[in-house]
Amino acid sequence: MRVLILGGDGYLGWPTAMHLSARGHEVAVADSYLRRSLCRENDCDPLFPVPNLHERMRLWKQHSGRRIDVTVGDLTDWAVMAALVQRLKPEAIIHYAEQPAAPYSMLDRKAAALTLHNNLGVTFNLIQAVRAFVPDAHIVKLGTMGEYGTPNIDIEEGWIDVEHKGRRQKFLYPRQAGSLYHTTKIMDTDLLWFYVRVWKLRVTDLMQGPVYGLTTAESETRDDTSLLSFLNYDEMFGTVLNRFIVQAVAGYPLTVYGKGNQIRGYLNIRDTLICLRLAVEKPAAPGELRILNQFTEVFSVNQLAQRVHDVGRKLGLDVTIKSVANPRIEAEEHYYNPAHHGLLEMGLTPTYLTDDLLADMIERVIPHRDNIVAERFLRRITWA
Amino acid sequence: MRVLILGGDGYLGWPTAMHLSARGHEVAVADSYLRRSLCRENDCDPLFPVPNLHERMRLWKQHSGRRIDVTVGDLTDWAVMAALVQRLKPEAIIHYAEQPAAPYSMLDRKAAALTLHNNLGVTFNLIQAVRAFVPDAHIVKLGTMGEYGTPNIDIEEGWIDVEHKGRRQKFLYPRQAGSLYHTTKIMDTDLLWFYVRVWKLRVTDLMQGPVYGLTTAESETRDDTSLLSFLNYDEMFGTVLNRFIVQAVAGYPLTVYGKGNQIRGYLNIRDTLICLRLAVEKPAAPGELRILNQFTEVFSVNQLAQRVHDVGRKLGLDVTIKSVANPRIEAEEHYYNPAHHGLLEMGLTPTYLTDDLLADMIERVIPHRDNIVAERFLRRITWA
Repeated sequence: MRVLILGGDGYLGWPTAMHLSARGHEVAVADSYLRRSLCRENDCDPLFPVPNLHERMRLWKQHSGRRIDVTVGDLTDWAVMAALVQRLKPEAIIHYAEQPAAPYSMLDRKAAALTLHNNLGVTFNLIQAVRAFVPDAHIVKLGTMGEYGTPNIDIEEGWIDVEHKGRRQKFLYPRQAGSLYHTTKIMDTDLLWFYVRVWKLRVTDLMQGPVYGLTTAESETRDDTSLLSFLNYDEMFGTVLNRFIVQAVAGYPLTVYGKGNQIRGYLNIRDTLICLRLAVEKPAAPGELRILNQFTEVFSVNQLAQRVHDVGRKLGLDVTIKSVANPRIEAEEHYYNPAHHGLLEMGLTPTYLTDDLLADMIERVIPHRDNIVAERFLRRITWA
Repeated sequence: MRVLILGGDGYLGWPTAMHLSARGHEVAVADSYLRRSLCRENDCDPLFPVPNLHERMRLWKQHSGRRIDVTVGDLTDWAVMAALVQRLKPEAIIHYAEQPAAPYSMLDRKAAALTLHNNLGVTFNLIQAVRAFVPDAHIVKLGTMGEYGTPNIDIEEGWIDVEHKGRRQKFLYPRQAGSLYHTTKIMDTDLLWFYVRVWKLRVTDLMQGPVYGLTTAESETRDDTSLLSFLNYDEMFGTVLNRFIVQAVAGYPLTVYGKGNQIRGYLNIRDTLICLRLAVEKPAAPGELRILNQFTEVFSVNQLAQRVHDVGRKLGLDVTIKSVANPRIEAEEHYYNPAHHGLLEMGLTPTYLTDDLLADMIERVIPHRDNIVAERFLRRITWA
């Protein structure tokens, strides 16, 4: 299948490109290097350097014999988006091209404006380009479990049947998120759901939990880091478990926000790739907004810290856990029971977070210990 | 009270400015003339010419002895918004500054992009300016009843209590709108609700139905049209009842879309002004998103057409009704039972749509009969 990946340079974008390419899909990636620029500007460089997209493409060609088409350009610019979609005529378009960091979106007015402009601008141009040039193409959009927030009732898979005063209506499950970044994802959903109804677009919205992990089936076939993705361990762009792993290796306390009873659904990066492939290979129908909750296991922050602590200690690391003032405005104790049937029914066999897997991550980080810059762990970007 | 009206040149903006000024408030208006530009570009000029804001301000001064502060500038530009809010330090800010026409938002990609950029850009800058310069100011935002769409259950006033599997949660009432314009209002709500929670802003969201009417208490004290608002009768910027009135005067069939059983909640422009004043004079609390459904009566399109037909005939006009292919994608038969308690409890005494009121509107349009350009009635802007 011809698959175009917007945001194909990102933490998930490049591994997805290799994964789909390895499975025989004809893959193209596009990216503006926004994440790289923002990380550089904000002193959030990843643990080891990551080659640029053209270099990655050549490495992958050398390694696998397969070609990935590369475009570097700003997809909020209609001319860039239109030319790309017209040239490639993709059958599926994966949309990762969003500013992905909640703390960055709360940094200041400019960062918030950039997040709003970039995220909605790409989604809007994508909708318009599909309508204009490939109306039957399938849009696979990354949403986030964070769109749902932490309501006091079960979180269903995208939709909810409401019975009210003796009548019934199926609604999009109400969303209320905890950061501007997450709120832009809700706004994406509003846009997509509107145009699905009027233009009969095919859309899958993958409501993903925080992702962890370093290696994937494609990257681990090499023994250097050249095919690996970004490993951010800073408070701004690093996700929680990856950050804990690097903190454990650095001998820096695992920084738990507040009480640490914030519960979320997590998944391994390997499962992300499989979920994306499952969605791409079984497209939504015309006029369908298919919503899938994309996570495999539920943990509290305390549970994650304890797991890293225990495994790290076994490996001889001096791991400690420290509660720090919560920079976010969020419930630190809450009900959380989210559904996640759809992807399992489509064939996902989860990679669970075993001690072996944690130990493997730690061992892969240890050789880069000297690269760790401890000031990056806590940036004190507060929501208030 | 110091009140700043964003979009103060619009159909509702200017009448609101005069109304609040007449009641002793210190009023400032800001506008980019976007509506004027779009009307000119799209051959949607109103029934009679409307003086520009500086002229209106001078006329109002002459007429009432009161001063209204005028700024012409693009509020999607942070520098303009910031300077305005810093200079005026308003206690209440009424936000009308949005591209207001559903059909325009569905015209083509550029019109859609402009609507998205303008509407969200102003809302975002407003939030940031309030946060930065007047954190205690009250934002009075115009939403629309169209955000709710036409669900099969009662429409409540902004919120709904959902009971689900034995647990309860209060949510924003789920929204799904019928045009991109209406969808941008949903997205505004997402933004405002997020920042209300994290920054404790004071926000009132007025979910308004289609407005009709020409004269207000302030304008009718003059016998020329110089203080009147825009009367658009075209398909793009004219609201349905105003359009029917002008069609009746022109001897043009009242154009009902499809079956005409689309039901909506309507209100007279005089009631809009009172609702705005009630909201301004009794602000929402810090951290409160107060949502009020702003309409007074519910009609189907057929009922409105029949009323205009009957009153027009009595006045000797040759009024006919014609069903035309519905350019919109919407339910033409649907359940509709929206709540509207809040504004009545705050003191609104509705101006109902009597035959006398319809006759008065018709009689005020008749002197401008020669200005009517019949090609403006149907523009064939289709949603599909």
